[in-house]
Amino acid sequence: MSSTVVNSPLRRVAVAGGTHGNEMSGIYLVRHWMQDPTELHRGTVTASPFLANPRAVEKCVRYIDQDLNRSFTEEILASTDSDHDAHEVRHARQINQQYGPRGSVNAWDFVIDLHNTTANMGSTIIIMTPEDHLSMHLSHYLQSRCEDSSSPCRVIMVKEMIRDPISLITVGKHGIGLEVGPQPQGVVKADILTRMRTLVNCSLDFMDLFNQGAEFPAFEMEAFGVLERVDYPRNAAGEPQAVIHSKLQDKDFLPVNPGDPLFLMLNGEEILYDGESTIYPSFINEAAYYEKNVAFIKLQRLVFSVPAIRVKN
Amino acid sequence: MSSTVVNSPLRRVAVAGGTHGNEMSGIYLVRHWMQDPTELHRGTVTASPFLANPRAVEKCVRYIDQDLNRSFTEEILASTDSDHDAHEVRHARQINQQYGPRGSVNAWDFVIDLHNTTANMGSTIIIMTPEDHLSMHLSHYLQSRCEDSSSPCRVIMVKEMIRDPISLITVGKHGIGLEVGPQPQGVVKADILTRMRTLVNCSLDFMDLFNQGAEFPAFEMEAFGVLERVDYPRNAAGEPQAVIHSKLQDKDFLPVNPGDPLFLMLNGEEILYDGESTIYPSFINEAAYYEKNVAFIKLQRLVFSVPAIRVKN
Repeated sequence: MSSTVVNSPLRRVAVAGGTHGNEMSGIYLVRHWMQDPTELHRGTVTASPFLANPRAVEKCVRYIDQDLNRSFTEEILASTDSDHDAHEVRHARQINQQYGPRGSVNAWDFVIDLHNTTANMGSTIIIMTPEDHLSMHLSHYLQSRCEDSSSPCRVIMVKEMIRDPISLITVGKHGIGLEVGPQPQGVVKADILTRMRTLVNCSLDFMDLFNQGAEFPAFEMEAFGVLERVDYPRNAAGEPQAVIHSKLQDKDFLPVNPGDPLFLMLNGEEILYDGESTIYPSFINEAAYYEKNVAFIKLQRLVFSVPAIRVKN
Repeated sequence: MSSTVVNSPLRRVAVAGGTHGNEMSGIYLVRHWMQDPTELHRGTVTASPFLANPRAVEKCVRYIDQDLNRSFTEEILASTDSDHDAHEVRHARQINQQYGPRGSVNAWDFVIDLHNTTANMGSTIIIMTPEDHLSMHLSHYLQSRCEDSSSPCRVIMVKEMIRDPISLITVGKHGIGLEVGPQPQGVVKADILTRMRTLVNCSLDFMDLFNQGAEFPAFEMEAFGVLERVDYPRNAAGEPQAVIHSKLQDKDFLPVNPGDPLFLMLNGEEILYDGESTIYPSFINEAAYYEKNVAFIKLQRLVFSVPAIRVKN
């Protein structure tokens, strides 16, 4: 029987929107909270909202020079600014200085990073590693409070695939990304914004309960591990020759079995899944992944045992 | 009783994709047809596919310097190239030279321009003027052949609002725009692409029948006229303070009555429609219209009497 993990109280909490400048729900919420932060106050904790990439937000593009959420590498954070730095390289260092430095005692206690996806991923929680017990408990709390049939809360564990930290949430001591969809780039949809808002509020409720001394018991959690990225079928010139099949579209996290359709070729042919075992695709038809040559990301189902947790007195 | 209008046969027909470089269904279709144009052949007519703004397509943005589909003004087309021209200004002149010149005997017979919208507009046909009888008949044919409950074919008549021609289709003797949605920018969805493909094929079938001498009888057509653009509620700094209400989202072309909700403020308040008469919104929450300060476009229902038409012998 595992013992209870103790963790320092959560005092400095940041909520980032606009890490990708065309993912609008987080941008609208953060802008609103910067004008009126009342909603982010709890008895023991207040979250600080910030726009992570204001120039990209201003232009309503994902990024200016390179993807900010792939720019928190050791190499970038350890280097000093130079005149030739990409906008996001310099900016990642600034965010790390303000909310980190990563791995230091000064790092903020928790970072929530708000994202939207064009995929039908409901309310997806991104966690870096199962060893972040606090984020696992927070996710479990969100699943118990915010989930409904129209918007399941699933957890993606990225550690298996990305060994080196690259994303904004790794700057804090703990962190989750929220991927809420489907929502087009450059568009804010009321239902998606409201769902994201509920998730953030629920997260702060959890942190407040935790800080007040509530003990959260051990549990087992299903999460999806990242297996591999799957590209679109292409011709010799590298141009995509197919689109996501209508029977796969919007079916994120659902099982795909051998023989199920994956793609529709422009010439009318269907491309079927010819693997041997069931897969679970996610980020199906995500707009931002076209340039990354990713049609969807294959996941595997995993189960994690999470120990009980309470605040360190 | 009105007499039958006669019109020259349709020989030179162009199909444009990528007039906006992030509206993907038309881009994928045109790229495919440029590789294999077989699908565009009919007995009496073959359509020529072309990418209208290849640089914008390459970058997956709506435009490089300015909106190409607002660049076919008299002033631009009548001027000569200069070094300071915006990319789309120069490009509009080139397209006008190739498929026009507008208003001349050399202008191509028909231009179909393929667009996507993030709004739930089904298969919308854009016509410049009810005096383009051929386009009215084509639209009527598309309504009879391609419409179903999941994808109604409605006609928007832009003449009432935009008196001076500015759009690509005005280069030809006749032309329609197809707005198929909802589809996010930078994403191609199989069902939307397939619907657009059917509309183009059906259009060519109509042209072939027309060229062969079929007489199309007179009819009355309902179409939507453009009344005015409606902006998002903004604060003193000009920042939007509200999003499209979830009860208005996806309700393009449906009646909105006094008291119906239009917007959801970030502070939770609802903004209701306070006009006196029923309106019909369209382009609700179109991504490309955020920068144009347009939340939706108000339409009015109109009825047009269209005379019979047949080919000139």
